Amino acid sequence: MITEELEVGFNVPAKVGMDEADIQTPCLILDLDALERNIKKMGDYAKDHNMRHRSHGKMHKSVDVQELQEDIGGAIGVCCQKVSEAEVFVRGGIKDVLVSNQVRDPAKIERLANLPKMGSKITVCVDDVDNVAELSAAATKAGTELNCYIEIDCGAGRCGVTTTEAVIEIAKAIDAAENIKFTGIQAYQGAMQHMDSYSDRKAKTQAAIDQVQEAIDALTEIGLKPEFISGGGTGSYYFESNSGVFNELQCGSYAFMDADYGRILDEDGNRIDAGEWENALFILTSVMSHAKPDKAIVDAGLKAQSVDSGLPFIYGRDDVEYVKCSDEHGVVSDPNGVLKINEKLKLVPGHCDPTCNVHDFYVGVRNGKVETVWPVSARGRMY
Amino acid sequence: MITEELEVGFNVPAKVGMDEADIQTPCLILDLDALERNIKKMGDYAKDHNMRHRSHGKMHKSVDVQELQEDIGGAIGVCCQKVSEAEVFVRGGIKDVLVSNQVRDPAKIERLANLPKMGSKITVCVDDVDNVAELSAAATKAGTELNCYIEIDCGAGRCGVTTTEAVIEIAKAIDAAENIKFTGIQAYQGAMQHMDSYSDRKAKTQAAIDQVQEAIDALTEIGLKPEFISGGGTGSYYFESNSGVFNELQCGSYAFMDADYGRILDEDGNRIDAGEWENALFILTSVMSHAKPDKAIVDAGLKAQSVDSGLPFIYGRDDVEYVKCSDEHGVVSDPNGVLKINEKLKLVPGHCDPTCNVHDFYVGVRNGKVETVWPVSARGRMY
Repeated sequence: MITEELEVGFNVPAKVGMDEADIQTPCLILDLDALERNIKKMGDYAKDHNMRHRSHGKMHKSVDVQELQEDIGGAIGVCCQKVSEAEVFVRGGIKDVLVSNQVRDPAKIERLANLPKMGSKITVCVDDVDNVAELSAAATKAGTELNCYIEIDCGAGRCGVTTTEAVIEIAKAIDAAENIKFTGIQAYQGAMQHMDSYSDRKAKTQAAIDQVQEAIDALTEIGLKPEFISGGGTGSYYFESNSGVFNELQCGSYAFMDADYGRILDEDGNRIDAGEWENALFILTSVMSHAKPDKAIVDAGLKAQSVDSGLPFIYGRDDVEYVKCSDEHGVVSDPNGVLKINEKLKLVPGHCDPTCNVHDFYVGVRNGKVETVWPVSARGRMY
Repeated sequence: MITEELEVGFNVPAKVGMDEADIQTPCLILDLDALERNIKKMGDYAKDHNMRHRSHGKMHKSVDVQELQEDIGGAIGVCCQKVSEAEVFVRGGIKDVLVSNQVRDPAKIERLANLPKMGSKITVCVDDVDNVAELSAAATKAGTELNCYIEIDCGAGRCGVTTTEAVIEIAKAIDAAENIKFTGIQAYQGAMQHMDSYSDRKAKTQAAIDQVQEAIDALTEIGLKPEFISGGGTGSYYFESNSGVFNELQCGSYAFMDADYGRILDEDGNRIDAGEWENALFILTSVMSHAKPDKAIVDAGLKAQSVDSGLPFIYGRDDVEYVKCSDEHGVVSDPNGVLKINEKLKLVPGHCDPTCNVHDFYVGVRNGKVETVWPVSARGRMY
């Protein structure tokens, strides 16, 4: 992927071995030391709590980051949200892939059913009994086996069933169908991950845990006890890990951190980016205009990030503030006029997932040098 | 670019000749009839008003769309925001390119200065006298000529100088420097383009026109009358066109339209997407879950669009509404439960520019068939 044809400043921001100061902006940079510490820490936590960690690849969309999560973080595989994204991870050599989402389009189902032929274990979520028949027919036609997690909507308000009756109906259908296997429950409480208060998040997660426990009890009663109970995110993994109910975590953002997650509070009332996790991902940006004395214009705007969860903050600086974002510009308040043309700033994006999604590369930096340039392998894979 | 190696549903949403119904979602589709009518209309308007139209390529980032704007819309060239974006248009054969922005990084300046060697006329904006020396040195070293527009900040609040004195100082510096030429004024009032009221936009534009006129008068007095006065957008082009001051338009969004522009009002109080311009760009999305009777989940979320200017609306439907957007999901309120699994909806994105920026392709549709698949040629070119 990183070939000689790539030109620094045209279609790649840097090459391995370059000085950090020569990286072309705007681009994504990774502090490799911080990234590795985050990944190791989550891996150790999961191991200490007898949890599998299936790291969420929808966040980074990178085979290289996923490999690091497996190598030093003990991740057992990846979860991702789309079939084409799963294909990128399978083609990249990841051996256990969960599509933590529904797949309904016939062409997508066919692609999914063919994926196990490349040597990876494939699991997909189901929330509709009609989908069971579709998946079974496709797997049978492909001569493969697909594993199924039944998705319970435990608060995210998106896909997933809301009653134990519906779980039972779908589990029975999967159990009766050819070439598909009922192996787990998908229960991700997405709506509360970003609530500031630890106790508010705890209460919401407990309601989800109770709901899932009820479904497990009913499934066990009919001899269909699920092997894996999967869920948990960066704002809640400790609740699921200590629930006695979940046994698979799906954390993603912990590895990179972002401004929206960073401000939520841990049990002791501290921001989670103030010790629990480190900022490892930054948008590197340069000052390109300072025609007004009290504001600098930087080169990272909406095409270098997503502001759906708020504006980025400027890492390590309290004298300047990113105050406005348009397509290709960021306005930085600089009341004392301290910024110089071409000075570089490190932005912590509001929301890491859709920010990574607009970039083609991660530039991994250590000790002032570019150590790695990793493609955002699944960027654009949204099908 | 569209080669055999591309696989429908993995890295391209469709191929030419396919039925519209088989397009893989989520993706961008273009109604080619509507697009051509929009482009022709703006071209005719500009011609009738003796204005040059330099269509803004930052919106579509597509060489193919730009070619259409030149072929049937009479556009004289393109403007874009970044050097790497300019390189895409030059390599794609566009002969007149304005980087309507500042270029300060030495590596970017060097790339820019080399661009005229590929046979295109290159112009760049300047708002700082130091930049004049940098551009001159690079063009001299490259043995090329760069044209310069002095950028006046007439309300956008980003780059650009705010006083006539600063304009004069920079114009004199350009005039005295080697290998660069003072050819125009860049004056884009970006901050008011999206104000709903026609009269509010008119008042803001008039203030900009007056400010630019003052600069022109002062420049004329010292024998440096600028040839081109460039600015105007989809929300204001009629004001600049009738000002007697501007002679170059930079409209972009008119070609595709979006939800944020669509709601602004014309002189008669009508939405501009209700006659002045047609919606030609849509995010095609599919229903992937309907586990709750009153809401459908669709497959287009934040990774298929930007919501910085609000949520998309669902084209041609008033019975269902897109109410929430997360990374890979859209929640559609469906109070009467009319939507079916795999049913396709056409979303009009909140803001077209950053939405196009997350996609790799435009699927051009006419009479129910895929007629074109155009790459978003400059996607990812943000340097």
